[in-house]
Amino acid sequence: MSVRRIEVQTNPAYNVYVGPSALEKVHECGLQKDCVFVLADEKAWSLHGKALVGLEAAPRLEITGGEDAKTLAQLGSVLDALTASGLSRASTVITFGGGSISDLGGLAASLYKRGIDVMHCPTTLLAQVDAAVGGKTAINLKLGKNLAGTVHQPRGVFADPAVLQSLPVEEWASGLGEALKTALVGGEASLKSLEMLSPELTRQQPETLSALVADCVQTKARIVAEDPSEQGPRRALNLGHTFAHAIEHCAGYGAIPHGVAVAVGVSLALEASAAMGILENGGLIERVNKLQKTLGLPSSLADLRGRHDLEPEGLLAGLAQDKKGAVNKPEFVLVRKPGDLALGVGMEGSLLQSLLG
Amino acid sequence: MSVRRIEVQTNPAYNVYVGPSALEKVHECGLQKDCVFVLADEKAWSLHGKALVGLEAAPRLEITGGEDAKTLAQLGSVLDALTASGLSRASTVITFGGGSISDLGGLAASLYKRGIDVMHCPTTLLAQVDAAVGGKTAINLKLGKNLAGTVHQPRGVFADPAVLQSLPVEEWASGLGEALKTALVGGEASLKSLEMLSPELTRQQPETLSALVADCVQTKARIVAEDPSEQGPRRALNLGHTFAHAIEHCAGYGAIPHGVAVAVGVSLALEASAAMGILENGGLIERVNKLQKTLGLPSSLADLRGRHDLEPEGLLAGLAQDKKGAVNKPEFVLVRKPGDLALGVGMEGSLLQSLLG
Repeated sequence: MSVRRIEVQTNPAYNVYVGPSALEKVHECGLQKDCVFVLADEKAWSLHGKALVGLEAAPRLEITGGEDAKTLAQLGSVLDALTASGLSRASTVITFGGGSISDLGGLAASLYKRGIDVMHCPTTLLAQVDAAVGGKTAINLKLGKNLAGTVHQPRGVFADPAVLQSLPVEEWASGLGEALKTALVGGEASLKSLEMLSPELTRQQPETLSALVADCVQTKARIVAEDPSEQGPRRALNLGHTFAHAIEHCAGYGAIPHGVAVAVGVSLALEASAAMGILENGGLIERVNKLQKTLGLPSSLADLRGRHDLEPEGLLAGLAQDKKGAVNKPEFVLVRKPGDLALGVGMEGSLLQSLLG
Repeated sequence: MSVRRIEVQTNPAYNVYVGPSALEKVHECGLQKDCVFVLADEKAWSLHGKALVGLEAAPRLEITGGEDAKTLAQLGSVLDALTASGLSRASTVITFGGGSISDLGGLAASLYKRGIDVMHCPTTLLAQVDAAVGGKTAINLKLGKNLAGTVHQPRGVFADPAVLQSLPVEEWASGLGEALKTALVGGEASLKSLEMLSPELTRQQPETLSALVADCVQTKARIVAEDPSEQGPRRALNLGHTFAHAIEHCAGYGAIPHGVAVAVGVSLALEASAAMGILENGGLIERVNKLQKTLGLPSSLADLRGRHDLEPEGLLAGLAQDKKGAVNKPEFVLVRKPGDLALGVGMEGSLLQSLLG
């Protein structure tokens, strides 16, 4: 099975390599010797770092991944490490880990000496299908998630299914939740493809995984190229995210994996779209529910409430924090049909009550 | 006397307003009510904040200006204050202070929600002639100055000579040092203009000041528009800066005002250019020395050594930290003639010894 190459036509353009041995392609992207720094998730590095052949001796900072890595203090540690390694402006940061590592490393690279190159080696399904592609970087602030960041396109992304084998079950679900969202944004063909792949995904075969990742990356590459800085069409990729952030905010960040919250957020967005008369065919809700079950994902707040405290008041407070809209005017992505989405700002109080009640 | 409008043709373009009442133009730049945040130098605000009519009630953070403001921790405070004020992506940060305030506020604006607008109201001569124009933002890291930042063009810059009246003498000299550099980079006409203005500058008349600031902004606007992200021609604006950073590093940051160090750096760059056979007319050195004297600026390391410890070893160590070049290969801007500069990487050890000895 060969490595798929998907071009993201931003300016400059870059390639996402998907498939077994994708990590070997790192060396085909014009790295300058002695000008590389590796930022790695310590666990991912201990399990799979050897796959990054030839970079064992490069300066490296290993940190604990997850949302707790995305702080201003940790950003400072990375920037200090880059300086201490004497990296010039011609250098490249290589991230090796999940979305928190690419978010943090991408931000550090975009700031160091006002911007050096970054390449991402995503080691979680969530990062492979979503976080590592598109150039968004971020850290969290005291008052909210991802509130500080940049848009800094990587010079290359290398998604190897081999590194996903050791993924904990909640990370797996998180990736599938974002994949579900991406399939809906991608359109009918993407959704059908996910429906076909879904019964096989639990077996975690490299071929099935690579097909899933490639599908998602293709959709994301198309949308990001159209709108790199999220002025318009790219906002569709936030489908389910306004609700998801409210769920994560309410349950406490880290309690519910991001993509799992997104899966429920997608259901809420579909229900809202139906209630507002935007959804063309109500059958899509059932279709998505079925897919969520096959993928082992929750499809409603009720599914989460058994284990998490998600009171309507807390969810409403979370919605008010939405980064995308104006103060107390959260922005929602609504669905007409797969691949055809609409932006809505604010939502009737009574509808919100019934969705979150 | 009317306000001069100088357009910086970046993408998008913006205006720099120079002259008495320039601050009134803030309201002509499409500010959205309730979407403004002011980051102010506390001293400048107490003296001149009232000139920013109509923004008294906007959320505001006042901090102590100077290099100590440019830390990661202070950046975090600004970002937290923006969040606490509930600023949306349609908001604008207005900076009111010297270069450290525009550097810090510009960086915070470029990061908050991945980028909101910023406008600068520079209140020091250095910031008016240089720092507030061109979009460079930065904070200092443990190991060096301006090592983390972005390029984030402001939406407008408002340079009013009235706010310069209370400037301490060392801030005054600092601005004149950068103005001298800009005149040399600008070309023969700019240098002649500075020579004409220089005897009058010590009188600090608004007309003379506005003429000086407008000259410098015009030169900088032309060069920044040509090369916003400093890939090539913009590097000429670093004339004198590799030496200046070494001087500041060696004396301890803050001990010598930046622009004063730049004035001496310009002399060292001219001497290096002469020694390397690049300078077309050795008379330029004498011409610049004369100008430095009229402006009350030092023209050699000897002028600084009376009050500062500037051992050759310390200066060499400072040069090795240069952000622009590769490790231990500092980049120097050399001079053929006014307006015609060349980039050099590294320098003969014996030449450096004789320049710094």
